[in-house]
Amino acid sequence: MKNVKCLKCIKCGAEYEATPDATTCECGGILDVIYDYDYIKSVSSPEAISSSKDYTMWRYRPFLPVEESTKNPPLRVGWSPLYEVPRVADKLGFKQFFLKDDGINPTASLKDRASSMAVAKAIEAGYDTIACSSTGNAASSLAGNSAAAGIKTYIFVPERAPIGKVAQLLIFGATVVSVKGNYEETFELSKAAIDEYGWYNRNAAINPYLMEGKKTVALEIAEQLNWKLTDYVALSVGDGCTIAGVWKGFKDLYEAGFIDKLPKLISAQSVNTCPINRAVKTGEPWSPMEENTLADSISVGVPRNADKAIKAIIESDGLAIEVTDDEILAAMRETGRECGVFGEPAGVTGYAGLKKLCAEGKIPADATVTCIVTGNGLKDTANGIKAAGEPIKLNPSLDEFKETVMK
Amino acid sequence: MKNVKCLKCIKCGAEYEATPDATTCECGGILDVIYDYDYIKSVSSPEAISSSKDYTMWRYRPFLPVEESTKNPPLRVGWSPLYEVPRVADKLGFKQFFLKDDGINPTASLKDRASSMAVAKAIEAGYDTIACSSTGNAASSLAGNSAAAGIKTYIFVPERAPIGKVAQLLIFGATVVSVKGNYEETFELSKAAIDEYGWYNRNAAINPYLMEGKKTVALEIAEQLNWKLTDYVALSVGDGCTIAGVWKGFKDLYEAGFIDKLPKLISAQSVNTCPINRAVKTGEPWSPMEENTLADSISVGVPRNADKAIKAIIESDGLAIEVTDDEILAAMRETGRECGVFGEPAGVTGYAGLKKLCAEGKIPADATVTCIVTGNGLKDTANGIKAAGEPIKLNPSLDEFKETVMK
Repeated sequence: MKNVKCLKCIKCGAEYEATPDATTCECGGILDVIYDYDYIKSVSSPEAISSSKDYTMWRYRPFLPVEESTKNPPLRVGWSPLYEVPRVADKLGFKQFFLKDDGINPTASLKDRASSMAVAKAIEAGYDTIACSSTGNAASSLAGNSAAAGIKTYIFVPERAPIGKVAQLLIFGATVVSVKGNYEETFELSKAAIDEYGWYNRNAAINPYLMEGKKTVALEIAEQLNWKLTDYVALSVGDGCTIAGVWKGFKDLYEAGFIDKLPKLISAQSVNTCPINRAVKTGEPWSPMEENTLADSISVGVPRNADKAIKAIIESDGLAIEVTDDEILAAMRETGRECGVFGEPAGVTGYAGLKKLCAEGKIPADATVTCIVTGNGLKDTANGIKAAGEPIKLNPSLDEFKETVMK
Repeated sequence: MKNVKCLKCIKCGAEYEATPDATTCECGGILDVIYDYDYIKSVSSPEAISSSKDYTMWRYRPFLPVEESTKNPPLRVGWSPLYEVPRVADKLGFKQFFLKDDGINPTASLKDRASSMAVAKAIEAGYDTIACSSTGNAASSLAGNSAAAGIKTYIFVPERAPIGKVAQLLIFGATVVSVKGNYEETFELSKAAIDEYGWYNRNAAINPYLMEGKKTVALEIAEQLNWKLTDYVALSVGDGCTIAGVWKGFKDLYEAGFIDKLPKLISAQSVNTCPINRAVKTGEPWSPMEENTLADSISVGVPRNADKAIKAIIESDGLAIEVTDDEILAAMRETGRECGVFGEPAGVTGYAGLKKLCAEGKIPADATVTCIVTGNGLKDTANGIKAAGEPIKLNPSLDEFKETVMK
């Protein structure tokens, strides 16, 4: 990896060689991938990237921590659409609005970007099995991306995991272990099994490479905006890995001279579960909160990557905003109706936050904004129905139709 | 439309001007779009198309029946991935296997291609409202694509439509009428309402342009295979519109000299609901059947486009194969596990049929095959659960894990 200098601990500053199965620092701190931007500039440019015909996240290889010889994993991840929707800009009262639909990825969430990276690094490191402990998008994306690459997966879920999510894992052929215990016990069993059998570890706050996969959403936004970022980029925040990855992406482009302006981040969390935003607003260190929002993907009371996320929001001169579940459901309807994009609850929380900031007068009229939808609403149809209401039930009769629907 | 000569009835041969809101022939026959292939050759070529940076279905405008001035509708439809999966070719016993994942479209099915076309034509014709009846995917795709374009929609669905698909419709802001009846009754009510209120008609067997949208999946397969088709192309068949569209796409390319070999079509239906395949096999005209398969998108007893579909299968020297619901569920598992693609039941029925033909020795060992997955499994998680099996239930104990899972 000529483009990577080393891994560096964000806590103590210790540096490590960037081996493909590196995890955390000896001090327990999370490692960051440090790039050689001079080297990147010498081998790449905005023009070179824009002329690539590889319409996946792997078009950004100069900015990705993989060996030159590593093949792109099989599933086509990334290059999700960025839609400009003038209607929304008019409605919310600012200049320009873009929506990035990342629910269009192969397993229908942004997490595919991290899992594609996990598959690439696991193969580099010579592993044939990857494991993780999760019931959400990270697990299903790992199972799908691994299946396509012929890699085995062990997924540990607590017994309370919803059957729908477990089904997706089983369809992709993961060995799914339903643990009769709580999440903590599930995590501990997965850790013991990973240690015992030496599998590749896909845990976003432990594995330093996964965030580098996630950052490709930011690289895409920049390229799709012709390397001129909007003033703001809004997204939902759970354990903090995604927003930290997004910021890393923008910073990488800035350091390499591909963009000359950084956006301000808008961090949207639930009013009930917002440990990261609370820390940003109070200036205190983050502390755990209860997990209480229907947006399950961001219902994270103990965020694993809080420090990186908080640093990113503050460094960007960003905004932190909290929304209610009702505001999240309204955002599902509004992005569906105005943009033709059906996002899962956590997927549209960034939009909900943006809307609330507009109502509070915090977004200037001349502002330009990008909002990321992080996951597809088909992953959570129960909340889709909750947001959308019920269809009109009729007998097959035109008269009944006229009287009921067209009245 | 310099590339379009006229619309021609497939039944009586009558010709019509290609107006944007044309429907069926006076004789009741379905109309076909007739192209001027000499004109197409004069303005396009495989090389010209392959160099286009428009990675949507609209890269094939020389083959599409829209005015030169018509804008591409907003949602990014098409250019779905074509995966080569050697594992599957080895397992099923032929030379080369490709899987086209059309579930990755914006509303998660192939039907987005027809709906994007419907939006383009409705705008050309000056309508602000579109209506259709559908078992689900056509409807949700119409609702999504119309919402993005600021067009109103009325959608008629049979009451058995899966909840995921209904949720999509409602989120996209469609007026959704759930009809207490079967698909036939639903269709008739939609027809009556469209006649009454003068909306744009997005019913695939009535509107001659929709098939032209669907055919782009064939154009993409050809381009992604570098204009050298596989020997076979397998897909599921319900109403008959999709397979007829696929055949039209290949034939257009052949007539224009873009490809020099046509594939044989594999038409996969349910053993219980197979009016089109039955007609192909018996040589008799098609007749209605009961609707009785869990693959709801192809549970069509009275196919609206049977004649075009039957003609396509026979003309291609194709194969007709019927599969059981259990074989469909097995195909969901297998495409998930081998390809990392989660298809809905109808979405993987083409694969189920292909597998059965292989078991019957009908596919030669030197054959190359493309299989289309027409919709995403997240649209029907209930059947996903049915297909997926059960997780392994364990106490949080490494010893128990070793004994049970790793034995």
